[in-house]
Amino acid sequence: MTGFGFEVLGTDGRARRGRLTTAHGTIETPVFMPVGTAATVKGMTSEGVARTGAEIVLANTYHLMLRPGAETVGRLGGLHDFMDWQKPILTDSGGFQVMSLTDLRKLDDSGVEFRSHIDGAKFMLTPERSIEIQNLLDSTITMVLDECTANGVDEAAAAASMALSMRWAARCRGAFEERAGYGLFGIVQGSVYPDLRLESAAALSDIGFDGYAVGGLAVGEGQKAMFSVLDVTTPALPASHPRYLMGVGMPDDIVGAVQRGIDMFDCVLPTRSGRTGQAFTRRGTINIRNARHTEDPRPIDSESDYPVVGGVSRAYLHHLFKAKEMLGPILLTMHNLHYYQDLMRNIRSAIENGTLDAFASAFRAEQAQGDIERL
Amino acid sequence: MTGFGFEVLGTDGRARRGRLTTAHGTIETPVFMPVGTAATVKGMTSEGVARTGAEIVLANTYHLMLRPGAETVGRLGGLHDFMDWQKPILTDSGGFQVMSLTDLRKLDDSGVEFRSHIDGAKFMLTPERSIEIQNLLDSTITMVLDECTANGVDEAAAAASMALSMRWAARCRGAFEERAGYGLFGIVQGSVYPDLRLESAAALSDIGFDGYAVGGLAVGEGQKAMFSVLDVTTPALPASHPRYLMGVGMPDDIVGAVQRGIDMFDCVLPTRSGRTGQAFTRRGTINIRNARHTEDPRPIDSESDYPVVGGVSRAYLHHLFKAKEMLGPILLTMHNLHYYQDLMRNIRSAIENGTLDAFASAFRAEQAQGDIERL
Repeated sequence: MTGFGFEVLGTDGRARRGRLTTAHGTIETPVFMPVGTAATVKGMTSEGVARTGAEIVLANTYHLMLRPGAETVGRLGGLHDFMDWQKPILTDSGGFQVMSLTDLRKLDDSGVEFRSHIDGAKFMLTPERSIEIQNLLDSTITMVLDECTANGVDEAAAAASMALSMRWAARCRGAFEERAGYGLFGIVQGSVYPDLRLESAAALSDIGFDGYAVGGLAVGEGQKAMFSVLDVTTPALPASHPRYLMGVGMPDDIVGAVQRGIDMFDCVLPTRSGRTGQAFTRRGTINIRNARHTEDPRPIDSESDYPVVGGVSRAYLHHLFKAKEMLGPILLTMHNLHYYQDLMRNIRSAIENGTLDAFASAFRAEQAQGDIERL
Repeated sequence: MTGFGFEVLGTDGRARRGRLTTAHGTIETPVFMPVGTAATVKGMTSEGVARTGAEIVLANTYHLMLRPGAETVGRLGGLHDFMDWQKPILTDSGGFQVMSLTDLRKLDDSGVEFRSHIDGAKFMLTPERSIEIQNLLDSTITMVLDECTANGVDEAAAAASMALSMRWAARCRGAFEERAGYGLFGIVQGSVYPDLRLESAAALSDIGFDGYAVGGLAVGEGQKAMFSVLDVTTPALPASHPRYLMGVGMPDDIVGAVQRGIDMFDCVLPTRSGRTGQAFTRRGTINIRNARHTEDPRPIDSESDYPVVGGVSRAYLHHLFKAKEMLGPILLTMHNLHYYQDLMRNIRSAIENGTLDAFASAFRAEQAQGDIERL
């Protein structure tokens, strides 16, 4: 079993080209992690996910603790066997969903009590229980339990919440069972307040983690505010460790965050959008339900010849969505995941070539042009 | 382009091991054709369907003429390009769905007028239009338009309906455009009445088709009545041509029909059952939603190591169905299609070895044993 480690292979401005080594394989960074909420990337087989180029997926502790239950997954040998995905898996702490999906929460220093959104059953999530669950899931990368503040929170409340998250981070560190090739990441909080972000980054560095996430963003603050937080935060994090921007995002959010020193991303956008008919292309997004695609024989993106989905026309995808056929969401999810992995490959190669700024400009210009109309 | 042809490679009792040669490739018979109603085998990519071993799929003229429309598919190059399936495609005539799904039908000698179940739009389906639509779809095997009688129809009504179907069959023959490697199949009708079946078989043989289907079965008459009709009908059909039993069926229906000289089958069972949680195994069917599978680490069928779905446990599939995840229906459909193709491979090899009766007995005995309980 190999150790858990991160190597910065090269830099371009503040962007880093890195490699993460784990018990379940290596990950080239910057990396995008598809979201596999309930131990499945919706609509995709594990083999299909791997085929898009994904090297790691994210699964949600909250959903899995409720169904089928962490102990059940544990008895079945952990998430890797359960979902037949032998590459790395990152799990979140469960905190974010507890705070966004459940009612009847009672949060104090000990943890958070909540009722399941499925059947109303009462659960308690503490820092120690979150770590235990992620251990049962056999998560390659475990996240600390934190409180994610809402957009618009005032500075005093953000400070109190951040302080709570830092106390929980220390308890998570203490509860985490060290195993070769497994890692624990801390999460920087502090909303949009630079001083709080710096204080949080310092507190986490003092505790010491295998990686550092930036949380509490992509909650409605807008790209400009998000980038400002990154401008302050990433320089305050240890350069020797991976940095993960949680829940982000749109392709141009990712490009800008890489330029600001972020190495890891996750987001439901490629999968969720795929299910509703939205496809990502080099020329921006298209809605395949739009009538203009009815007889369009072109593939979604003529420059991207992805396996399987590259073989069908916009007209066929349009038909599948109109007829409410499962294959529509399946193929569009597949396309979008390929698109995101393609984007990350292009980003990595731009960093290697020292041309990330030029890549970013060309990328934004092409996105702004909009879809190529059929001749 | 090769010609359309059928070769009987060997026989075992009345069962035949054959090979169908078409413009889109060869098909080993006895063959099972997955149903791709609206130009998609529900939940499966074309690549996934091919991987189960399927050599031909069936698509429904009725659904495609309404959406996206036969002319649209025609302009897009036909069904093969549309659904990215370059192997053979058989299309039905549209008649069966018109008669089972629509209201406000007006049927006379000219054809049948009906309203779309989607938007109420009025359509007319005649023998000539059915052939024209299937030509636009670029169907490898075209079926004649016929009237499928309901179970329990009296002999006089069955005779009148069969006579109409025979007149339509002759008009279809006249309207069919001969193309190398493309074929037209007639359909025997006559309900459960032996004399009518014989009259129908003779009428079709006189017209002359590339293959002969047995229609009007699997409509509730029961296996015994169905087999009786086959016992009368298949000996009356030209031995040199393929015989297709429409809409059948359960695995043991297929085995018994092969023993009675049938070469081709289609049925929604493996796909429809897969979507509702039912899996076919050597030991009969199981319902994966059943609580006994909650922590069962075994695959669906430990003797069948199918790609992708063979890598996951019953517990995982149970979880996916409980959580209403798309991947549940996807994986179970995949499993069931593999099961059906496996069954056909075993049937073909039993015929080759002259051991079909022994295979059929062992097959029925194993099915009757029921699922192997977890130790």
